[in-house]
Amino acid sequence: MFDFKYFTPTKVVFGKNTESKVADLIKEFGGKKILIHYGGGSVVRTGLLKRVTDTLDAAGISYVTLGGAVPNPHLGLVYEGIELCKKENVDFLLAVGGGSAIDSAKAIGYGVVNEGDVWDFYDYKRKAKGCLPLGVILTIAATGSEMSDSSVITKEEGLVKRGYSSDFCRPKFAIMNPELTMTLPDYQTACGCADIMMHTMERYFTNGGNMEITDALAEGLLRTVKKNALILVNDPKNYDARAEVMWAGSLAHNGITGCGNDGGDWMTHKLEHELGGLYDVAHGAGLAAIWGSWARYVYKNCLPRFKKFAINVMEVDPSGSDEEIALRGIEAMEDFYRKINMPTNLHELGIDPTDDELKEMAKKCAIGVGGEMGSAKVLNEEAMLAIYRASM
Amino acid sequence: MFDFKYFTPTKVVFGKNTESKVADLIKEFGGKKILIHYGGGSVVRTGLLKRVTDTLDAAGISYVTLGGAVPNPHLGLVYEGIELCKKENVDFLLAVGGGSAIDSAKAIGYGVVNEGDVWDFYDYKRKAKGCLPLGVILTIAATGSEMSDSSVITKEEGLVKRGYSSDFCRPKFAIMNPELTMTLPDYQTACGCADIMMHTMERYFTNGGNMEITDALAEGLLRTVKKNALILVNDPKNYDARAEVMWAGSLAHNGITGCGNDGGDWMTHKLEHELGGLYDVAHGAGLAAIWGSWARYVYKNCLPRFKKFAINVMEVDPSGSDEEIALRGIEAMEDFYRKINMPTNLHELGIDPTDDELKEMAKKCAIGVGGEMGSAKVLNEEAMLAIYRASM
Repeated sequence: MFDFKYFTPTKVVFGKNTESKVADLIKEFGGKKILIHYGGGSVVRTGLLKRVTDTLDAAGISYVTLGGAVPNPHLGLVYEGIELCKKENVDFLLAVGGGSAIDSAKAIGYGVVNEGDVWDFYDYKRKAKGCLPLGVILTIAATGSEMSDSSVITKEEGLVKRGYSSDFCRPKFAIMNPELTMTLPDYQTACGCADIMMHTMERYFTNGGNMEITDALAEGLLRTVKKNALILVNDPKNYDARAEVMWAGSLAHNGITGCGNDGGDWMTHKLEHELGGLYDVAHGAGLAAIWGSWARYVYKNCLPRFKKFAINVMEVDPSGSDEEIALRGIEAMEDFYRKINMPTNLHELGIDPTDDELKEMAKKCAIGVGGEMGSAKVLNEEAMLAIYRASM
Repeated sequence: MFDFKYFTPTKVVFGKNTESKVADLIKEFGGKKILIHYGGGSVVRTGLLKRVTDTLDAAGISYVTLGGAVPNPHLGLVYEGIELCKKENVDFLLAVGGGSAIDSAKAIGYGVVNEGDVWDFYDYKRKAKGCLPLGVILTIAATGSEMSDSSVITKEEGLVKRGYSSDFCRPKFAIMNPELTMTLPDYQTACGCADIMMHTMERYFTNGGNMEITDALAEGLLRTVKKNALILVNDPKNYDARAEVMWAGSLAHNGITGCGNDGGDWMTHKLEHELGGLYDVAHGAGLAAIWGSWARYVYKNCLPRFKKFAINVMEVDPSGSDEEIALRGIEAMEDFYRKINMPTNLHELGIDPTDDELKEMAKKCAIGVGGEMGSAKVLNEEAMLAIYRASM
């Protein structure tokens, strides 16, 4: 195993009606003037935003609001948020929503505290020296951004989607009420489950440094999400299943399922980022559409892990050769995707890129990772193109 | 499942030679004048204390030292530490050692920041309003105090052992180098493994609110410690096994293996605290000596959990009635204790209390928990006495 750091300072307040504690939490972490950042109209329609502002009003906490964060959140809105925070002397950010609102808020937080263009961080040009403190009321279980050190932003010009990670942006608190996720469309719920599992699978499929306890936690998490995602297909109002998935979403990406390994593979995410940048597809669905092709391309180079995954997570018949078991696991995962109505290729995802477009994505992806990347198998541009082609 | 809070702000720096980073970490968390608190002579003998002070000297960080923290750490030394900190204007505590040094440092931290007698907190008379910031260099994998909110102190007068918990005392950082645990006597290593498992077992054997994902994490952790504790019996210098156990020790008690339940049972700990207070036995060995008797007394009232434990943790034959499977699991746990040279009764623990002494312990234990306590089964003084008698 490798040396590691683990740092998850976010105070999690989990359960029914926990959003009522938002003012107390903001005060605990010293917030005086708040930017409430949210996405589309759902937090308005459901009345959540009003409940939040009523709570802040009652507590005498001053705030401004900024809506409009979209999936694959845009840099333009980030700039707008930075200006608003500076103008209004905002000292604390409250993201109300899913990963889009949280990631957008994180980028705003970097932009307020650091001089210069915030895109520099996402463009790997320099490192942030801080971030405005941030709290979260989570409404979608998916990205894990409520505890993670990462955020992903899309620059509209050239549709470039990039992530930036630092401990500075880990939220101070995360309010998680599983009931808030019950109004989600089924498709978004399934996308969330695919995303959650992938965050841990990216850490799991490695060729270096794995710890047994980390594996045990990862496998337990994946089995739990798999089971509860299937429950939610037919019973989307099931509180316990919502709660299992929601808590798994945070644990899948706060770092705990990767302690001791080499940092993980992350190529499925990188390949999907190019799809998400160009086609604005739902992130979780994009991951599902790519994963099978990635897995079949790399599994022979990472056979012990694919075998372990097949047996301990997908719970397939453990007889036969390692390769047979590994392939059985990949097939079982694709079957699972189909059962939760997730795509297993680009066509099912609803896009049909030309080969030139695939080449363009592979090229951008290779540039984005600095030439080549991966732990299960190191992938270069040619390999990326092969996976994109196989996913058609 | 029940609502829960989860808060583990400790920055973990895990791996070989990580103690060399202590000065940087103290600076990161604002420490200017340090009290280095440690236990017996082992951190002196091994040269660890000198390496630490050399590092602080090189970084220009001022410090005073206080050794002498013993297992079941004493209130007298806590008072001494509080006086020393006040006299020397200490603003940051560094515990170097295991749970004794850390718990003692936590109590010192409470005493420096809060007015009045620090024992009041341990005596449930009032609540602390803060704690001096604290960092840890861990040398024994056992108590989990390096990430936990709890500390346990023994008042010499009457040998009263009590715990106090608050988020204020969660360490700012924990340096964990598995190599530092290799000089431990085998008995202490085994005691640590017993303690680690018990922290999660206390959370696991409940009658309320359990989450599937929490169970999966708990079971994975327990299986991992079980396997690696057995490896360490014959191969105490095994780095990977040391690392698995060390990281498990933190996770077993930082809260993650209890999210969503009713808070846990904790009666084995309470019963052992009376042993530890009166006889100064090693905590982990005391837990092992009591657990079997506790388990046989309560299991029928918590059968689904004991069955699950038997199958998923102890991996026993899952055939037969629930009761048979549960008992098979208890027997397997006791077999495991014997394999790592842990006692399964008070005689093996090396003590032979009279029946009057058992009655005295049961009485003190009942007072300590406010009359009755437990989740697997609520225990009153009579039940406590029955368990003590069965453990003879």
